[in-house]
Amino acid sequence: MKAAVVTHLGKPLEIQELPVPEPGPGQVLVRMEASGLCHTDIHAAHGDWPVKPQPPFIPGHEGVGPVQAVGEGVSTDLVGWGHRPDGVWGRVAIPWLGSSCGTCRYCVSGWETLCESQVNSGYSVDGCYAEYAVADAGAVVPVPEGVSSFDAAPLTCAGVTTYKAIKVARVVPAERVAIFGVGGLGHLAVQYARLVGGFVTAVDLEPDKLGLAHKLGADQIVNARTHDPVEEIKKAGGADVAVVLAASAKAFEQAYRSLNRGGRLVMVGLPADNASINVPIFETVLSGISVIGSIVGTRQDLSEVFALHAAGRTQVIAEPRRLEQVNESFDEVLGGRAEARLVFEF
Amino acid sequence: MKAAVVTHLGKPLEIQELPVPEPGPGQVLVRMEASGLCHTDIHAAHGDWPVKPQPPFIPGHEGVGPVQAVGEGVSTDLVGWGHRPDGVWGRVAIPWLGSSCGTCRYCVSGWETLCESQVNSGYSVDGCYAEYAVADAGAVVPVPEGVSSFDAAPLTCAGVTTYKAIKVARVVPAERVAIFGVGGLGHLAVQYARLVGGFVTAVDLEPDKLGLAHKLGADQIVNARTHDPVEEIKKAGGADVAVVLAASAKAFEQAYRSLNRGGRLVMVGLPADNASINVPIFETVLSGISVIGSIVGTRQDLSEVFALHAAGRTQVIAEPRRLEQVNESFDEVLGGRAEARLVFEF
Amino acid sequence: MKAAVVTHLGKPLEIQELPVPEPGPGQVLVRMEASGLCHTDIHAAHGDWPVKPQPPFIPGHEGVGPVQAVGEGVSTDLVGWGHRPDGVWGRVAIPWLGSSCGTCRYCVSGWETLCESQVNSGYSVDGCYAEYAVADAGAVVPVPEGVSSFDAAPLTCAGVTTYKAIKVARVVPAERVAIFGVGGLGHLAVQYARLVGGFVTAVDLEPDKLGLAHKLGADQIVNARTHDPVEEIKKAGGADVAVVLAASAKAFEQAYRSLNRGGRLVMVGLPADNASINVPIFETVLSGISVIGSIVGTRQDLSEVFALHAAGRTQVIAEPRRLEQVNESFDEVLGGRAEARLVFEF
Amino acid sequence: MKAAVVTHLGKPLEIQELPVPEPGPGQVLVRMEASGLCHTDIHAAHGDWPVKPQPPFIPGHEGVGPVQAVGEGVSTDLVGWGHRPDGVWGRVAIPWLGSSCGTCRYCVSGWETLCESQVNSGYSVDGCYAEYAVADAGAVVPVPEGVSSFDAAPLTCAGVTTYKAIKVARVVPAERVAIFGVGGLGHLAVQYARLVGGFVTAVDLEPDKLGLAHKLGADQIVNARTHDPVEEIKKAGGADVAVVLAASAKAFEQAYRSLNRGGRLVMVGLPADNASINVPIFETVLSGISVIGSIVGTRQDLSEVFALHAAGRTQVIAEPRRLEQVNESFDEVLGGRAEARLVFEF
Repeated sequence: MKAAVVTHLGKPLEIQELPVPEPGPGQVLVRMEASGLCHTDIHAAHGDWPVKPQPPFIPGHEGVGPVQAVGEGVSTDLVGWGHRPDGVWGRVAIPWLGSSCGTCRYCVSGWETLCESQVNSGYSVDGCYAEYAVADAGAVVPVPEGVSSFDAAPLTCAGVTTYKAIKVARVVPAERVAIFGVGGLGHLAVQYARLVGGFVTAVDLEPDKLGLAHKLGADQIVNARTHDPVEEIKKAGGADVAVVLAASAKAFEQAYRSLNRGGRLVMVGLPADNASINVPIFETVLSGISVIGSIVGTRQDLSEVFALHAAGRTQVIAEPRRLEQVNESFDEVLGGRAEARLVFEF
Repeated sequence: MKAAVVTHLGKPLEIQELPVPEPGPGQVLVRMEASGLCHTDIHAAHGDWPVKPQPPFIPGHEGVGPVQAVGEGVSTDLVGWGHRPDGVWGRVAIPWLGSSCGTCRYCVSGWETLCESQVNSGYSVDGCYAEYAVADAGAVVPVPEGVSSFDAAPLTCAGVTTYKAIKVARVVPAERVAIFGVGGLGHLAVQYARLVGGFVTAVDLEPDKLGLAHKLGADQIVNARTHDPVEEIKKAGGADVAVVLAASAKAFEQAYRSLNRGGRLVMVGLPADNASINVPIFETVLSGISVIGSIVGTRQDLSEVFALHAAGRTQVIAEPRRLEQVNESFDEVLGGRAEARLVFEF
Repeated sequence: MKAAVVTHLGKPLEIQELPVPEPGPGQVLVRMEASGLCHTDIHAAHGDWPVKPQPPFIPGHEGVGPVQAVGEGVSTDLVGWGHRPDGVWGRVAIPWLGSSCGTCRYCVSGWETLCESQVNSGYSVDGCYAEYAVADAGAVVPVPEGVSSFDAAPLTCAGVTTYKAIKVARVVPAERVAIFGVGGLGHLAVQYARLVGGFVTAVDLEPDKLGLAHKLGADQIVNARTHDPVEEIKKAGGADVAVVLAASAKAFEQAYRSLNRGGRLVMVGLPADNASINVPIFETVLSGISVIGSIVGTRQDLSEVFALHAAGRTQVIAEPRRLEQVNESFDEVLGGRAEARLVFEF
Repeated sequence: MKAAVVTHLGKPLEIQELPVPEPGPGQVLVRMEASGLCHTDIHAAHGDWPVKPQPPFIPGHEGVGPVQAVGEGVSTDLVGWGHRPDGVWGRVAIPWLGSSCGTCRYCVSGWETLCESQVNSGYSVDGCYAEYAVADAGAVVPVPEGVSSFDAAPLTCAGVTTYKAIKVARVVPAERVAIFGVGGLGHLAVQYARLVGGFVTAVDLEPDKLGLAHKLGADQIVNARTHDPVEEIKKAGGADVAVVLAASAKAFEQAYRSLNRGGRLVMVGLPADNASINVPIFETVLSGISVIGSIVGTRQDLSEVFALHAAGRTQVIAEPRRLEQVNESFDEVLGGRAEARLVFEF
């Protein structure tokens, strides 16, 4: 099979021909139809973060396709992705959460994303930049019929991550939700913020992206190049929730200052370095502000994301690429030239 | 009446003889029996904060005593502090929240402490460092019989503030709650953290205060002068909640690093200057950490605080002072020599 | 002024010419532009409930119009409905909650609708079936410009009640919400259930109402005359929330049986008599079911309802009537012939 | 090994000598040290409930003891009950939830107790009335050193069930929690209600049990034989939460009527027959009452229960029995003569 492999951290990926992996006990083999490119994949390939992945490895944690084979002990009767009545295997998504222990306090309490024994797809185990991938049978999430594999791929990380950010923000209908950064994540965040009844302000530097945000339901758009987002958001009543998808100090600071009392700032974007943000003590205490870190979502969150998409409640804006274009695609994202989520098609 | 008056920000207070104020429409006149000294009073007298109080004014927002007279439109039939069957007036507490609008989104939703039209006792209106004080009839909180005025005073701010901090942290029983700073606030925070089922770690620099924390129910005590609190807390399983009562960057940083995944850091202490704290983005997102600002509590929170104390569930550690000692008392607090909450007795 | 007056419980209302009332201290005088007819008004006029209103009285608690005069102590500067820059008085809505004490545990905690000292418009005080009404200045809710008085009227009770029912049900996106009864309340419940991300099943006996529900966003419609709602809902995955707007034992029982594990049944509709419903113990415990009573909503809930409508997120289906038609209108509702909420226009 | 076996539903159990079972893949073999008797075991043995267990089977779901052997694929390195540094196997508890699927919406969201594919110990698979039992390695819960096996047994069901009931009731400190029925479950419910800051009223018919409740922290005790619990509770301010452990219509009705507005009635006890309770519609809606079914708790809940006990926060009142006394023990419970939880010791 064809795979994009990180051979050395920070070096371009190599397209290699590798044997199709065998599903081990408790695993499934998935034939990729679509595999999204997440900024995390670039951080992985560059070794940007404290705990580094071990080359050679295959990145990717937005992989979608039908199950081709199952390993020992995997019952295909009971799960959504198994043999269907028509004899066709179901499709599944392989998310960032490659597996979790299933017994720790986090796993048992609905917070498997915080499991300290978690394995991460395309990071601690091989991921989805390949024609085939193996994955933990319990970790993959069935993709319902109404969702194309091409759409499902970005939903598998960009979707569920922004969906979860909106969930942890506990948005009350008619609250204003400001989304800082409209792109692969932001265009979905806008939709989820609206989907739960929020009034949405989208902030970006690009008119095109703001136009898109408006089309997707943003009630207010602010071009931060020409207008002060804090001022504009305050004019509209202030933000009750601000989701920061751009890992920039400036975006954070603007998001913070746009908040109303009782406001919640949700951090999602991860910087390449060990950056930190400044939280003013006096204002945070007096205004009852919360700053919340939010990381991807659970399998159940992803099921909800798929169900909402199948019901026509969301749109995915993505662009197809071939796996051979992986290095150019990385450059496209890093250069800010990607207009949407990039998805490798097979 | 005798009153301690701030005549110029940053100057010593003057003990003056002033006329007893008249309760206006909707107000009550309270004869002080006890009036606690909160660090906020010092900040007020020094003009430490961005929005400054206007001298001359009387500080104090932990005042407790019987109602002596009521203004126009105040029905004494319907409220707890009014004429009782035995003809004695009830006692009330005058808290930091001198009044709130009653109609804004915050007031209507149980968050009156965030009301943007709030008036603050001893800050924007005269407070409780005096033999008598007037207060909004709807803002004062009845003090039940089982609570002495001396105990009620510190509960009125130190109590309700730490109680609320524990509430917003949503402590689950058997979670570890680390309290950074045992003193006027901290000795109550320890008790509230335990009262909701938490396992409590108290961190301080003084052996006496740690001994007190232990007596009040702390499961673990850490002397931060001799031991690394992060290490000690991690040995005990890590903190799920950390309440920072000392407004120091170091305490914040230690509190942050002692947290487990899913942990919540609650900021309560207010620094004199425009300090801010550094929140690392990567760890906050990956570990699902929340940093929460918490400010005093509502009238209902204070009622609960009183009810718990009346039922013998908490102890107040305080020391009596005479109002004439107000300037020495300020020095005592600023010099870290106060072993407990100071309460002016009349 | 013209008013519809209940002179004897159970007798037809009389249209009388009465003096325009004077706003007392803390009150406003509102000139009615629209006044909705709620089933509760009929129960009031008939004396159906345990605590009966005292004739003569004017029913109505969905009244909307501009403030015409204010009583003593009402500051028009600080509130939304006061003198605006252009010199025009703002419009307000007079809801069921005519006033609440503002200091009890319920009022302070965001649950003013449970205040035991509450006064109810058109029940314990005169209401809105008249050209003018006086109301507590703090209890009325400003109506934003984007909401017509005609639309605002039904939102003031039917809207906020169903909105609150959806709120207390804590709907998670992609959960199925079954609405039993599409009418004055139900057509709004369908919209709120969808507005928070729910998949909506509407159940009714009338094809027209089901067609309306579908147009308003219901994902599934079930004609309970021709199909078993339990079976149909189970086919679609079962209900996670069921809102029962028809106060019938059969609707309740079907709603209960349509629930998934962890499901919540919200009761809203009030019967004329002292009816009760049967909750099976075994199923309720094993399936972790909750049965929740929900009553109207707070002023903040109503503000949210108005804001959502002003933003175009909801539609009101109502029909105008003249106040002189009050008795025929009652008959229309009782006979099940009203296709929508009826609103008296002035 | 010795085991108490249900050979025919409704017949006395037989003490049989059976081979020690072999742990299958993913299972552990546990050597019983203590095994509690839960009323559910009697319902199981009698076939009281709609879905009946298949004889012959061994009841019991409160079994505690050391792990003796593990089946294929069970890693003993990663789990609390595995080989400890001193070479001794750890102890575990086998709860009602014998296994759950781990992938459904309930399992992933922290509600494994609602999993529709769950297996139940001593009901759908053999349980703990035996010297040895096999159990799913992921379902058993480690017992910490500070908890004896004798105490751990009742905590494994009676403890976690009442603990969960208090959790789902979302008790706020200073709220009044009425516990209807002090016995195997109730004496623990009293403690958990107090442990989260509640004021506790214990209701029972037996002076001894009420004395016990008082010793365990109940603030108020009511002998329902001599006093009307509704009246007594109302005198004390009314109940905000009522937990009904006795599955009787009368207890339910009294519990319901003792509630304040906003109150929550939690049903825990399961009757033998298909009983249902009557919920009055009018009061439930107007008073904003919730009736909540609650079933056992998760593995994490049980871990919390053990941790609280190890920290000395709870006491277990139980009496030892020999397995040979199983039929007399059933009679003792059915006759209401058991003064505490009965625990078979091995």
